[in-house]
Amino acid sequence: MSEERVKFVLDEPAIPTHWINLMADIPGDPPPPLHPGTKQPAGPDDLTPIFPMALILQEVSAEPEIEIPEPVREAYKLWRPTPLYRARRLERALDTPAHIYYKYEGTSPPGSHKPNTAVAQAYENAQAGIKKLTTETGAGQWGSALAFACGLFGLECEVWMVGSSYDQKPYRRSMMETWGATVHRSPSNVTESGKAQAAHPTGSLGIAISEAVEVAAQNPDTNYSLGSVLNHVLLHQTVIGQEALAQMAMAGEEPDTVIACVGGGSNFGGLAFPFLRRVMRGEAKTRFIAAEPAACPTLTRGVYAYDFGDTVGLTPLMPMFTLGHDFVPPPVHAGGLRYHGDSPLVCGLVKQGLVEPRAYRQNETFEAAVRFARAEGLIPAPEPAHAIRAVIEEAEAAREAGESRVILFGLCGHGHFDLSAYDAYLAGRLEDPEFSEDDLAAALASLPEAPALA
Amino acid sequence: MSEERVKFVLDEPAIPTHWINLMADIPGDPPPPLHPGTKQPAGPDDLTPIFPMALILQEVSAEPEIEIPEPVREAYKLWRPTPLYRARRLERALDTPAHIYYKYEGTSPPGSHKPNTAVAQAYENAQAGIKKLTTETGAGQWGSALAFACGLFGLECEVWMVGSSYDQKPYRRSMMETWGATVHRSPSNVTESGKAQAAHPTGSLGIAISEAVEVAAQNPDTNYSLGSVLNHVLLHQTVIGQEALAQMAMAGEEPDTVIACVGGGSNFGGLAFPFLRRVMRGEAKTRFIAAEPAACPTLTRGVYAYDFGDTVGLTPLMPMFTLGHDFVPPPVHAGGLRYHGDSPLVCGLVKQGLVEPRAYRQNETFEAAVRFARAEGLIPAPEPAHAIRAVIEEAEAAREAGESRVILFGLCGHGHFDLSAYDAYLAGRLEDPEFSEDDLAAALASLPEAPALA
Repeated sequence: MSEERVKFVLDEPAIPTHWINLMADIPGDPPPPLHPGTKQPAGPDDLTPIFPMALILQEVSAEPEIEIPEPVREAYKLWRPTPLYRARRLERALDTPAHIYYKYEGTSPPGSHKPNTAVAQAYENAQAGIKKLTTETGAGQWGSALAFACGLFGLECEVWMVGSSYDQKPYRRSMMETWGATVHRSPSNVTESGKAQAAHPTGSLGIAISEAVEVAAQNPDTNYSLGSVLNHVLLHQTVIGQEALAQMAMAGEEPDTVIACVGGGSNFGGLAFPFLRRVMRGEAKTRFIAAEPAACPTLTRGVYAYDFGDTVGLTPLMPMFTLGHDFVPPPVHAGGLRYHGDSPLVCGLVKQGLVEPRAYRQNETFEAAVRFARAEGLIPAPEPAHAIRAVIEEAEAAREAGESRVILFGLCGHGHFDLSAYDAYLAGRLEDPEFSEDDLAAALASLPEAPALA
Repeated sequence: MSEERVKFVLDEPAIPTHWINLMADIPGDPPPPLHPGTKQPAGPDDLTPIFPMALILQEVSAEPEIEIPEPVREAYKLWRPTPLYRARRLERALDTPAHIYYKYEGTSPPGSHKPNTAVAQAYENAQAGIKKLTTETGAGQWGSALAFACGLFGLECEVWMVGSSYDQKPYRRSMMETWGATVHRSPSNVTESGKAQAAHPTGSLGIAISEAVEVAAQNPDTNYSLGSVLNHVLLHQTVIGQEALAQMAMAGEEPDTVIACVGGGSNFGGLAFPFLRRVMRGEAKTRFIAAEPAACPTLTRGVYAYDFGDTVGLTPLMPMFTLGHDFVPPPVHAGGLRYHGDSPLVCGLVKQGLVEPRAYRQNETFEAAVRFARAEGLIPAPEPAHAIRAVIEEAEAAREAGESRVILFGLCGHGHFDLSAYDAYLAGRLEDPEFSEDDLAAALASLPEAPALA
């Protein structure tokens, strides 16, 4: 008992020096994003009004590794390296021969993996002479990460927060303001996009994006920042998987299965890509499971097609699994997973069969989260609770097969701002929305005309 | 820049093997607690109805070190060792030559230092065959720590939560329930003490204590658990200071000043006692500053006298600085510091001049907390914000003196459940209650008759 290691910690110099760009190892040319007007391949110039060139170059880079700027590594020191845990108490509670490990990103000041990219984006924008970043946020995970990062690099930060969340979840707003950000209730009266949507006072992520992009596009010293989906965002998150590789080596184990939840794909990509590269290079055999909500089953029920990244249709067309860009997911508490599409990179891997997607209902994910919390102590955010549900399935399968499998999953954030959802679950009041074929048909009717994908 | 260490991490085997009992190094015999009825020294037998003998023996032990049971060390592995940070960004923001370090206890699942003693108490009660622990909680820090700890050792946990907090701060309640505890709104209708107080529906900590103690005293398989003040609680917290000693050695520095906030004294004692023992043994010269709220200035304005530990007068009389046991502190957000007395051990050290107490107003502590959060990222709980205020004073004094002093302070928890207080501060709506001589005179009138203290 006393010799049983639970926590694997790395020292500060073990913070990765490079990000891993999986693009370099993916065979063939991935389908390019298309300009929303011309439907021709979108080039770097299409993005310069809202992104700095350094990030655009990362977005299209074919280099296998990209060096992390020293000031970004300095910022990472505030919470990285993050711990890797062996879930011995959960293993015992499940009576499984499987070894379960989790990489915990909730020790960052905003409490999730999001600042891994927020500090990189804030740094590159500050280097480019930008004075202010704008963004949208739903429940506030991404907005708080960007507020924190802008504070570190002396940038102003302006966040449009979906109106219903602004009213119901004031604590993430207070967090952003504590770090010095300005938070607008969206729809706001400071943008034309917002004024035009005054008839929809509860707002939506789509409206909030439009407001943030409008302000960035109109002001030369202001840029926009996105928290997931894009290649450069997933690139920044690969610090997670690189540290996990080193920590699994400390534990003397090789994961058979890597599991993470997928919303826009940055948490999944961050953990999985360094392991996936080894598989692509023939250095390891690993299964990958992407867990998503049954109420927003992009990877399991969507179609693989070009679609807009946003609701209103301003972004380039992206090659991805999609439920249709005007699909509005039911209000499940895993706000970070309520997205009609997914990262084109992750979607391509699913299409190739390298990543297995699975969808879970809201109540079964909270049941898994409570089991985890009672065994391991940490209370997960609703998003990684989807991964935990998949982990429990795999651990039970290992028990039935009588096999000692090694499972690694991403615990990408804590649930300190989601306790009202736990409250509803424990009281039996949690809704359990399903996705219907009718929803799918209606949503897919909104797909834009574009070339078909193979 | 790249060589600048920010975080000092210890590996799992560095979790202390023993707790440090400062009692063994304090010269002379400290005044004993007195039985509330007879006013004679209280003995171990007076405590057996509500505490297990193992904890009572720790309470009165004269051994300099007490071995930590292996299952408690196992539980500590879920979050210990905790990180020590060098606050380089705060130093730059303050333009001070001082080196500022902080020991961060917010990485525990409940988010504070409280589980260091909660797991030790849960373990010893489980060993003694106890099935259930009861306790009271205000805003919920202590209740959530005990709920977490009881879950780890298979004990039931029943918490009486002050009615006004139960209504206004539902998230800590949800946290306790997620870990499997039962939470009562106090005054409840399940105890005689609660029923008798039905006319005070908002409740108080004093009423909640009475309810928890009543249930523990009446049921042989149920005990009561206290989160601060008592010797054995401070003993358990000395894991903090022992780790900090090792981490300061890693940093190659010796603290000139150690600073922590004081409510009941367990956070202060936990960090300071291992450093204080070195001072008592002539091995180091260190200053110690205890920071408390000006609205509840026990150490700075109270009298040194025997007083009850609780509001209703059921506990032994304790030798301590006190504002009078029926003093009701104004509702400052640092709920953990709203206590009329303080640990007799800490009070004795203040009386001897080994610890310097300082009191701060609510708004100046939040100003310090926001400065810290904007520099270092982590958002402090309102309690350690008092310590941060003292740190900033000391760092500014070092700048004025042109001296490079080394300051270590305890960041005993995060403020994720206190963001409404930040909101009020940022909006200029935070109250700034003061303590008046009239308050003091009125409160001291409640002191019980008892022998005078030297």
